[in-house]
Amino acid sequence: MSTKYLYLFTEGDKDMRNLLGGKGANLAEMTNAGLPVPQGFTVTTEACTRYYDDGRKIAPEIQEAIFEYMGKIEEITGKKFGDKANPLLVSVRSGSRASMPGMMDTILNLGLNDEVVEGLAAKTGNPRFAYDSYRRFIQMFSDVVMEQPKTEYEKIIDEMKEKRGVTEDTALTAEDLKELVGEFKARYKQNQGVDFPSDPKVQLIEAVRAVFRSWDNPRANTYRRMNEIPYDWGTAVNVQSMVFGNSGDTSGTGVAFTRNPATGEKALFGEYLINAQGEDVVAGIRTPSPISHLEQQMPEVYKEFVEIAKKLEDHYRDMQDMEFTIEDKKLYMLQTRSGKRTAAAALKVAVDLVDEGMITEKEAVMRVEPKQLDSLLHPQFDATALKAAKLLGKGLAASPGAAAGQVVFSAEEAASWHAAGKKIILVRLETSPEDIEGMAVAQGILTARGGMTSHAAVVARGMGTCCVSGVGEMVVDYDKKQFTLGGEVVKEGDFISLDGSTGNVYGGAVATTEASISGDFDRLMKWADDARQLQVYANADNPKDAKQGSDFGSEGIGLCRTEHMFFEASRIKAMREMIVATEKEAREKALEKLLPFQQSDFEGIFEVMGERDVVIRFLDPPLHEFLPTEENDIKEISAELGMTVQALKDVIASLHEFNPMMGHRGVRLSVSYPEIAVMQTTAVIKAALAVAKKTGKKITPQIMIPLVGEVKEFRFVKNFVVETADKLIKDAGSDMKYEVGTMIEIPRACLTADEIAAEADFFSFGTNDLTQMTFGFSRDDAGKFLDYYYENKIYESDPFAHLDQKGVGILVEMACKKGRAANAKIHLGICGEHGGDPTSVEFCHSAGLDYVSCSPFRVPIARLAAAQAAIKNPR
Amino acid sequence: MSTKYLYLFTEGDKDMRNLLGGKGANLAEMTNAGLPVPQGFTVTTEACTRYYDDGRKIAPEIQEAIFEYMGKIEEITGKKFGDKANPLLVSVRSGSRASMPGMMDTILNLGLNDEVVEGLAAKTGNPRFAYDSYRRFIQMFSDVVMEQPKTEYEKIIDEMKEKRGVTEDTALTAEDLKELVGEFKARYKQNQGVDFPSDPKVQLIEAVRAVFRSWDNPRANTYRRMNEIPYDWGTAVNVQSMVFGNSGDTSGTGVAFTRNPATGEKALFGEYLINAQGEDVVAGIRTPSPISHLEQQMPEVYKEFVEIAKKLEDHYRDMQDMEFTIEDKKLYMLQTRSGKRTAAAALKVAVDLVDEGMITEKEAVMRVEPKQLDSLLHPQFDATALKAAKLLGKGLAASPGAAAGQVVFSAEEAASWHAAGKKIILVRLETSPEDIEGMAVAQGILTARGGMTSHAAVVARGMGTCCVSGVGEMVVDYDKKQFTLGGEVVKEGDFISLDGSTGNVYGGAVATTEASISGDFDRLMKWADDARQLQVYANADNPKDAKQGSDFGSEGIGLCRTEHMFFEASRIKAMREMIVATEKEAREKALEKLLPFQQSDFEGIFEVMGERDVVIRFLDPPLHEFLPTEENDIKEISAELGMTVQALKDVIASLHEFNPMMGHRGVRLSVSYPEIAVMQTTAVIKAALAVAKKTGKKITPQIMIPLVGEVKEFRFVKNFVVETADKLIKDAGSDMKYEVGTMIEIPRACLTADEIAAEADFFSFGTNDLTQMTFGFSRDDAGKFLDYYYENKIYESDPFAHLDQKGVGILVEMACKKGRAANAKIHLGICGEHGGDPTSVEFCHSAGLDYVSCSPFRVPIARLAAAQAAIKNPR
Repeated sequence: MSTKYLYLFTEGDKDMRNLLGGKGANLAEMTNAGLPVPQGFTVTTEACTRYYDDGRKIAPEIQEAIFEYMGKIEEITGKKFGDKANPLLVSVRSGSRASMPGMMDTILNLGLNDEVVEGLAAKTGNPRFAYDSYRRFIQMFSDVVMEQPKTEYEKIIDEMKEKRGVTEDTALTAEDLKELVGEFKARYKQNQGVDFPSDPKVQLIEAVRAVFRSWDNPRANTYRRMNEIPYDWGTAVNVQSMVFGNSGDTSGTGVAFTRNPATGEKALFGEYLINAQGEDVVAGIRTPSPISHLEQQMPEVYKEFVEIAKKLEDHYRDMQDMEFTIEDKKLYMLQTRSGKRTAAAALKVAVDLVDEGMITEKEAVMRVEPKQLDSLLHPQFDATALKAAKLLGKGLAASPGAAAGQVVFSAEEAASWHAAGKKIILVRLETSPEDIEGMAVAQGILTARGGMTSHAAVVARGMGTCCVSGVGEMVVDYDKKQFTLGGEVVKEGDFISLDGSTGNVYGGAVATTEASISGDFDRLMKWADDARQLQVYANADNPKDAKQGSDFGSEGIGLCRTEHMFFEASRIKAMREMIVATEKEAREKALEKLLPFQQSDFEGIFEVMGERDVVIRFLDPPLHEFLPTEENDIKEISAELGMTVQALKDVIASLHEFNPMMGHRGVRLSVSYPEIAVMQTTAVIKAALAVAKKTGKKITPQIMIPLVGEVKEFRFVKNFVVETADKLIKDAGSDMKYEVGTMIEIPRACLTADEIAAEADFFSFGTNDLTQMTFGFSRDDAGKFLDYYYENKIYESDPFAHLDQKGVGILVEMACKKGRAANAKIHLGICGEHGGDPTSVEFCHSAGLDYVSCSPFRVPIARLAAAQAAIKNPR
Repeated sequence: MSTKYLYLFTEGDKDMRNLLGGKGANLAEMTNAGLPVPQGFTVTTEACTRYYDDGRKIAPEIQEAIFEYMGKIEEITGKKFGDKANPLLVSVRSGSRASMPGMMDTILNLGLNDEVVEGLAAKTGNPRFAYDSYRRFIQMFSDVVMEQPKTEYEKIIDEMKEKRGVTEDTALTAEDLKELVGEFKARYKQNQGVDFPSDPKVQLIEAVRAVFRSWDNPRANTYRRMNEIPYDWGTAVNVQSMVFGNSGDTSGTGVAFTRNPATGEKALFGEYLINAQGEDVVAGIRTPSPISHLEQQMPEVYKEFVEIAKKLEDHYRDMQDMEFTIEDKKLYMLQTRSGKRTAAAALKVAVDLVDEGMITEKEAVMRVEPKQLDSLLHPQFDATALKAAKLLGKGLAASPGAAAGQVVFSAEEAASWHAAGKKIILVRLETSPEDIEGMAVAQGILTARGGMTSHAAVVARGMGTCCVSGVGEMVVDYDKKQFTLGGEVVKEGDFISLDGSTGNVYGGAVATTEASISGDFDRLMKWADDARQLQVYANADNPKDAKQGSDFGSEGIGLCRTEHMFFEASRIKAMREMIVATEKEAREKALEKLLPFQQSDFEGIFEVMGERDVVIRFLDPPLHEFLPTEENDIKEISAELGMTVQALKDVIASLHEFNPMMGHRGVRLSVSYPEIAVMQTTAVIKAALAVAKKTGKKITPQIMIPLVGEVKEFRFVKNFVVETADKLIKDAGSDMKYEVGTMIEIPRACLTADEIAAEADFFSFGTNDLTQMTFGFSRDDAGKFLDYYYENKIYESDPFAHLDQKGVGILVEMACKKGRAANAKIHLGICGEHGGDPTSVEFCHSAGLDYVSCSPFRVPIARLAAAQAAIKNPR
């Protein structure tokens, strides 16, 4: 039996989204509910995948079926496609499973040609309407199907209006429009090299082909990647008989929401235009009227529409976004779908629907996109101000929010300008740990290099500071204190604005609105917390971040990076002394100086966290990161350290690595210099003992050894930790417990997880590094070639943003399984950047992890994502 | 039931090596065979592991058992330990499963003290003998057990001899020796702070402890790592009642082999000393006599010894290495074991034993250490010349063989000095592909940096050129054209010598002997080929290497690296034009220039290889490797390329990578620039068509895409390959077949091997990179910290030298399993450095691979290793 590639609206329903697309499924649903829907049919998404499988050809059998179904529509409508006397015109629209801007949208009035247009004029007695429809059709077909420049046709209309001395399209007469049609067809031929197709059948197949083709255009591909929509879903095509909002002053067209999509307020919200077709409402040439005006203008129609809107919302149990057309006072519904909404609206609608008894709390939890929450937690640009802003360029949306400030080019300048009360944006080629203090006082951070998990991006997300990274086109000149982007030269002190949620960089200071969280937020998050099975921790390196995480609902700290503590001016000298030491004794002496700093940092964190988990990761980066690279700094610092410039240079040279990512770092540092682990253990345990004593709380510090790939290296360092900790605890007369675990971030750790688990109290998956090693590419370098991979659909999303379940995921699952088998009491978590990504959180839930840990500002997102995962797949 | 930690010699046999060590097992075996063995017992290897498990303590129960067994020996010998009247003295010797120099060897005469020595003197009527034994004991105990400086005691003897005006130890009288004992004991106390232990029980336990402890000394650890002996095996201790070769002129001691260990000739070979104890024979103070002299000196003893030697060889069916002592004309056997032998001797003995009907051909194959073959295939130093050579320093034994020549510091100098007829050693900080031509003409290569798989090491092994890499202490000064090592300054033109089999660097020109292969080699390799199930291919980048591989018996080429072809002076310009091109067209134009070069290279290789497999890997290294780094070169090359210096610098900067190992290389290059794959495909296919036409042979080229981690990226590039190849073949009117496969060197490729196998004709495991990614360390950087890992027994061998079966091996096995399940016809091989390492070859056999590929000079090793694997574990 051959596949059924076409469905009449009467044959489908709303559950057939995968096959019919969202639009097709809902048109069918409305048809079956008896709503006034112009009839038509849907060409399925399978026909689209078939089109690509067949080498971008529409199979003859599908073409035949399309005409067969046109026949069925002819029967239903009593009109005939291509017939002069009683012509059937149709619209052709794309419609995939998920609503997807970027694809071809709509062709209206298809089926017109020089003869049919005359018939339509005669039949309706309205030649102006007929030619208006015809010129719209040619214009859309040229633009959307043939991809000719839209502006050329708009210019022809503008010239015509100027010639006639009118300002509105509606002021053009039938004759004007007929002349326009002639000019359009001439332009079409000039652009295309052939005549405009007069055969309606050719028009139809070309339009269907254009919809299929548009599934693969760059805009659609980008959108899909950003929204994780698989390429192989394909799009459906809806062919629907036309109704005409442009047939006179008792006709019109509009769009409306059942609730306010910006605020969630329960009130019909929308606009319409009289004597117009679909695209006029959004085109902005004429100003539409608010939907409430319709009540005066056509009370009957308005009443019917309000009833239908209510019926649809009740039916779908969600806010609906509807398109409608009025033809000669008769209302037709062209589309309904769950409406896109702001985060605030999403929260309010979800909570209100629960209060209205329409949905359950769990359903409410499912109704809010986790990543939407970002916009509630960070400042945003004022929408009006943004429209006027000049876009200079675009980078990666590395850390969400909006920021405006004066440009500075160094961390030192950032600090001093900030001290002088200025709002600043820190601009760097890339950031390094030495820039931390400057980053902390910046409104936003802008870098020329580095990806989503570069230093700048990771630190900025941790701080909740807006960051745009990897603006490859930006040329930064530190000497001249300026950068060039989008043809503009921006100097120190000039204002710029960053949108960390889109990656956009604007010139000047764009006004921002503050973050705000409503009571709806707390109610929904409470429901989410009730539903979820994963715990959510925060990554926090200091008491401030720990507090921030707690405020956002984190239940512990899953990653406290100790190295950031060493970069502060008061500490880095001792750190450097440690690094340049050639003997163990000198190293220990320098470490002794660092000990009180570390201890007091940990005390601050334990005080905030009390009895909740705090996982402290021991020193991770290669030591050369703490040494200067610039000639001047080397001079200064060698003097500080009391060594010759050459001696310091020799140390720097000896620490040089070809591939620092795979170099002397993580546990390897403590294998070489166990005294580092001993000092850090001392700091952790002394801090825990002190805070426990002071607060009377039962503190159980968790020490995490990074980068382990072999149980023996873990055991080697653990022995130093245990020996040191046990002695301190015993000397303090305490019975404090502590745990020693490891970060799983090396493939070999996953492969040998059973052995490691037998020694470790916990695993925390460091999926940033694990992704790098599993793919064999460095996150700092991959940006250069990953674009080719996206373009060619080799990868559909950034594996550093969304955990790669096919590769990295297998290693994670293997490690969980082996780990639990060897140590039933082991607890498992993730502390990589993926811990705050909704799809990755869902994977972590399914893989059976105990917790996810992410930057404080992502904690609410993770809580919601964890709840949705648990509702979808309870475990 | 408690573990049995001790065995009398009468309780063991030769199959109990694991428990009793080699020495203990063979002493037991000889005892049971009725040979004259002084009786004793063995403390098991399990007691040694127990010692370490107990925190380096000998458990009381084991100490008690030792004395219990001493009691049994007292019964057997009728003597008493510590008894003045009839003292039992013992020797204490280590003995692990594998013969292991580096551990504590022997303590003789244990049980003596001031009283017992008098008793012994009285009983034997030979006070000279008694005091000679006593001074030997104190000397050995101080040195071996207490680790006091040996030379101090030797100096005391020398002073005594000088005082007495004698030259030989034997000329010292009993009184002299007694005085010596006094001086020794004084020195002991001075060094140790306590008196020499007079209690024989204390002496014994200390000696046993010293044997256990010596298992973990640095020399032993180094030896174990080099020979892949696991740390957890432990050593046994043999306690044996003494017989005395130093009791007069009818006594003596000696060592002998049943055949000549240097040549394999079938004739008793060895030497002995009259009136001496064990260590005298090897100490070199007195010159021993050849074993044949014994026939005159003590015909009866000699006859008995010859009979025993024959009996032992027949029994063990291998050449034996024996120790014996004659006490008052009575022969005692102290040890027998399979004798160490040179490669030539190993071959001759194995082949002779087959001819003598003693062993089967398969057994003969098992008798030769594969890695020993190296010394047959490369020049070696003349042993006498080597003794006189001055050792300057030591690096890694990167490519075997011996070389002497004049030092030059650049590839250009190498070429011009070579052209002038000089033998040169190329000395570099590290080598890069640009040095290839210089490396090709060098006798040997010496580098300061880089490990066993550095560029220098890999290329040198491929060429069969001697190389010592990673001489960390060497300071190279290119400007002054000199290097400093071991305190010596070596200038351009000075002679040095390299031993690539040990890593030693010598000053001056040490004489070498040429490589030589005997008929025995061919016979044994034939038997090996009959036995093995793995095929053995060679890695070869040019016709010369292909020929070399064939001569050594390779059955195909498993890895032909195409990038090396681009570094030749005539080609690199076009390569650079390709790299600096910003447009596809310019890139294609440059590639077109490279095409004829590539094609002719491939033609040369196909002509050598005929119908055998040739796997050609497409461009792999990051492009920046082809660009200059030095200011002068940049100037010159920018002019050559017709661009400004700044423009070239910009290209170089844009290609800079933080972690080039994980950067834009391998398949990623062809994803970005498919025209590279198209050019390379064209070259391969045209070459194959041309050679097929010319020779009439059926050539089936195999194209290998490197660094694949995802099936879609493989498919993307494969599509270009197939399109290009099919068209060329069709246009030529040919029906030539070709294959497209991939290198599996990224963990993700293993994890998704089923998907990739569905598209690939073959997998070739690139275990160098796979090891790097799986361990998360870069081979270029790991040298800096791996020493700490070896020291602390975290890793026992270099994972780049021996495939890590626990981690990397799991990925390989997973990929094999998934690959075969998805594609039953897929063929599987390995082309990393591990392909020439015997233990790795054994793993490849067990994992079910079809072939291993290695550098030409390793082919015989791989053939033999593959045979041994198949004999051990037929599949």
